[in-house]
Amino acid sequence: MEISIAVAKINKYATSESGDTLEVVERPNGGLSVVLADGQTSGRGAKTVSTLVVRKVISLLAEGVRDGAAARAASDYLFTERNGKVTATLNILSADLQTNTVVITRNNPAPVFVSQEDKVDSLNTESLSIGTSRNIRPSICEVALQAGLTIVLFTDGLTQAGERYGTPMDVCTTLEALLEEQNPPAQELADALLTHAIKLDEGRPSDDTSVVVLRTLPDCGDLIRRMTVHLPVENY
Amino acid sequence: MEISIAVAKINKYATSESGDTLEVVERPNGGLSVVLADGQTSGRGAKTVSTLVVRKVISLLAEGVRDGAAARAASDYLFTERNGKVTATLNILSADLQTNTVVITRNNPAPVFVSQEDKVDSLNTESLSIGTSRNIRPSICEVALQAGLTIVLFTDGLTQAGERYGTPMDVCTTLEALLEEQNPPAQELADALLTHAIKLDEGRPSDDTSVVVLRTLPDCGDLIRRMTVHLPVENY
Repeated sequence: MEISIAVAKINKYATSESGDTLEVVERPNGGLSVVLADGQTSGRGAKTVSTLVVRKVISLLAEGVRDGAAARAASDYLFTERNGKVTATLNILSADLQTNTVVITRNNPAPVFVSQEDKVDSLNTESLSIGTSRNIRPSICEVALQAGLTIVLFTDGLTQAGERYGTPMDVCTTLEALLEEQNPPAQELADALLTHAIKLDEGRPSDDTSVVVLRTLPDCGDLIRRMTVHLPVENY
Repeated sequence: MEISIAVAKINKYATSESGDTLEVVERPNGGLSVVLADGQTSGRGAKTVSTLVVRKVISLLAEGVRDGAAARAASDYLFTERNGKVTATLNILSADLQTNTVVITRNNPAPVFVSQEDKVDSLNTESLSIGTSRNIRPSICEVALQAGLTIVLFTDGLTQAGERYGTPMDVCTTLEALLEEQNPPAQELADALLTHAIKLDEGRPSDDTSVVVLRTLPDCGDLIRRMTVHLPVENY
């Protein structure tokens, strides 16, 4: 089996710094975790908050702390550091090779979509952002790690795309349409969702937006691990 | 301009855990750093050592510590933790958007190749692995961040490939041949170098092997940041 994880990420229009922070980290007992946080507002302040949250989570995950405990710790930490005045959304997506599951941890009102075969389920139970009170609990969902799985998560820039033009994005319908095509690679899915959102915002993203797609394929071809990062740099 | 970073990584034949650890981290003042460590020997013990080193380095880089200082700190830390009995190689490759340079930090006898246009330079000044004594200094090289740059670094699995069959790999020549082709993408270069090494080892890599390629292109197309990770999972 092969696990593919793809990320597509853009800044709010005319903003040089994204309030979304994303890091991928190797799990100490096998597998990978993607940690995504979106700090309140945008620009430098939001970046500082989301970085603080993501750093805390990845350092705990690296020590073997479980995802739910890491999310709670990050919440309490942000609450303490910023006196409960600043909020952030947090998602952790882990392919855990010790339990052979995918663990989806959400402190984010935005849903997470999980698809097996052609059916798309929405994880949309109420879930609070972290940082504004003590004892904020994450919503956690665990699914068996098997071939044919697609998981899509994102920051609220995606769901808010097009709203100011009266054409809000229906992420679930867009995703279903994309999945009907012949097994699109994870990066193609992430790119298609993000570019659709940018189009609805008429080329000027109204918020920092990040899309993460995890897909599992039955065959891995070879045993080579691969990672590619593309970082566009403006004004060069 | 677009910065592409690609990684291709394989375990020693019939080993479930790699002694090489690699993480990519966002720099707090803009840009990315790739941190690669190869722990002494192979398997679980080597993994623990390389993870310890990489974690220390990325946590320092995330706090804004400069690459050279982070490498020295990791060396002293490993020396202290393991009483000078365990060694590891360490490479840090940073695309620093604050200084607009690429910083190459080496504590690794293996060279790093830097190419601008068609010429390939080898950074091969003497460089000691970390962990066996105090005050081990890294070799640091800084080059301007501009389009047309290719940087290739790797763990010693690559240079040792084919040795036991009397057909050692000449990384520099292989790289020069690959660069003569029409601007291969970073991932294609990393894959080609690794698969050539595996072939010289007759399909059974004699050591954990990691290849990192950084390339800069004049155009970035769009302003979307992208990341893809492919993780093959055996026995599924």
